[in-house]
Amino acid sequence: MSAETDAPVTPDDIERAAERISGRVRRTPVIEHGPLLLKLELMQYAGSFKARGAFNRVLGAGGLPAAGVIAASGGNHGAALSFVGGSLGIRTEVFMPSTSPDVKRRNIERFGATVQVIEGYYDDAQAAADARRAETGAIEIHPYDHPATVAGQGTMGREVEEQAGPFDTIVVAAGGGGFIAGQAAWFRDRVRVVGVEPETSQCLRAARLAGEPVDVDVSGVAADSLGARKLGAVPWSIIRDFVDDSVVVTDDAIGRAQRELWDEFRLICEPGGAAALAAIRTGAYVPSAGERVVVVVCGSNCDPATIV
Amino acid sequence: MSAETDAPVTPDDIERAAERISGRVRRTPVIEHGPLLLKLELMQYAGSFKARGAFNRVLGAGGLPAAGVIAASGGNHGAALSFVGGSLGIRTEVFMPSTSPDVKRRNIERFGATVQVIEGYYDDAQAAADARRAETGAIEIHPYDHPATVAGQGTMGREVEEQAGPFDTIVVAAGGGGFIAGQAAWFRDRVRVVGVEPETSQCLRAARLAGEPVDVDVSGVAADSLGARKLGAVPWSIIRDFVDDSVVVTDDAIGRAQRELWDEFRLICEPGGAAALAAIRTGAYVPSAGERVVVVVCGSNCDPATIV
Repeated sequence: MSAETDAPVTPDDIERAAERISGRVRRTPVIEHGPLLLKLELMQYAGSFKARGAFNRVLGAGGLPAAGVIAASGGNHGAALSFVGGSLGIRTEVFMPSTSPDVKRRNIERFGATVQVIEGYYDDAQAAADARRAETGAIEIHPYDHPATVAGQGTMGREVEEQAGPFDTIVVAAGGGGFIAGQAAWFRDRVRVVGVEPETSQCLRAARLAGEPVDVDVSGVAADSLGARKLGAVPWSIIRDFVDDSVVVTDDAIGRAQRELWDEFRLICEPGGAAALAAIRTGAYVPSAGERVVVVVCGSNCDPATIV
Repeated sequence: MSAETDAPVTPDDIERAAERISGRVRRTPVIEHGPLLLKLELMQYAGSFKARGAFNRVLGAGGLPAAGVIAASGGNHGAALSFVGGSLGIRTEVFMPSTSPDVKRRNIERFGATVQVIEGYYDDAQAAADARRAETGAIEIHPYDHPATVAGQGTMGREVEEQAGPFDTIVVAAGGGGFIAGQAAWFRDRVRVVGVEPETSQCLRAARLAGEPVDVDVSGVAADSLGARKLGAVPWSIIRDFVDDSVVVTDDAIGRAQRELWDEFRLICEPGGAAALAAIRTGAYVPSAGERVVVVVCGSNCDPATIV
């Protein structure tokens, strides 16, 4: 960590993002769970934190072409973008990988976007979206690799600090890195930021080990939300300075955390959304005595039959 | 309504209840839903508001016999009492009607109580519990007809006023009347209290029409939580003075409200817990322009497969 940084997203950017998207995103609740504070961001519009970044990115894009916006998404960014497009009256096209569950596809279509399902993982959907964009001239809204998107995600950290601060540590799931980078950009050295990945898709951990984003293989129960093959360049330029720790959890541990959220709160939480709690339960991250820890429960889009 | 009342539960009683159960119940979240404020009491321990009343009643009972406590319950009170007994190390026996879903039975057993399933509805389970109590000398913890239980339920109103007040109206489901009486005892004439019942079990409406509690038939999707055959005497002595309106909703409207809570928030809400929202959606209760309305979502114990 360093006080000097060339981070492309500053706390001021996040303040401006919060103003820009105010009234368009939900202020999601916080609830105590023993000594932990759970930030229930899974109750955000369209079922995940992604609406924050998508609103800030689209509202910041200025005049849009008639072809509107386009994105590749495992589902949550696509649902959020569809919600944003629907709210703002913008044409929206989403390319999703076939590994994503049906509940996510329905969630995207529900808000009005056109959906194309592509065989494979996230990067395959990205390639198809790129080809389509070249054809139509739509503006790409990347799920994570843009400063405006990262600033939007950072409004969650600003909000939970207002609701529950001060605290020592925030534990968040990491996929392409946009969400954790947003929190890191907001908290900088004031709060410990811990990233959690499934052991089956760990591009954050790989980037930290290599000193730069590198390609990794992805699989496992959370691949539809956390299965990015490479950490984004914009997120990395924040993460390298302000993320304090990164840990991994097994698919089984994620399943147990999903079940815990059901048993305790009757919450239906998708695998990626339960990864942060899994890190606490497995001891992948062990808080000190008296450490005040926020655990972000960040996505809800899955079939309840996979949990109950 | 009247400023003069012989209400057996006062706002002071509710203040004392809040102190007594502090740290033992959850402070449940509030979330905006369009112009409405939803109080997510379904996230309470054991899945409904009932833990509030059960803790206050048991903690107020003083020395308990070795046989502990006993209750009849459609499920939610039983689960709450099991949770309370488990927390305080008290032997707990629960008699439940066969109309209650399995998820509620498992929820009761999970916290340590002994469960007996009785053929029929709530009142049949009550008769069986009475017989058993005569045998063992256990203390009966009635689901709703006791001042300490009503005062405990009233702590929810106190809490939501602290979180989201001031507001004009609070809309709550009614079964035996303990929950709505608690809110009415807290808010008195300061806030409009509206009770909602399924059209298939309306003992509140019947009592208001008759001028006293009377027997009614019960059936329908919410019978396991709201299907009391007669309003309690203690609740009635508060309700008659401080409940402003009572309305009914169909089982279909309840189902649609459950689906809305799933679609919007990924919440699994039981039929009784969704009744208050159903009253708004059907126009059974129509808020005025600018009226600030709290809708209580009060129970979560059901099988997701009945919703999704």
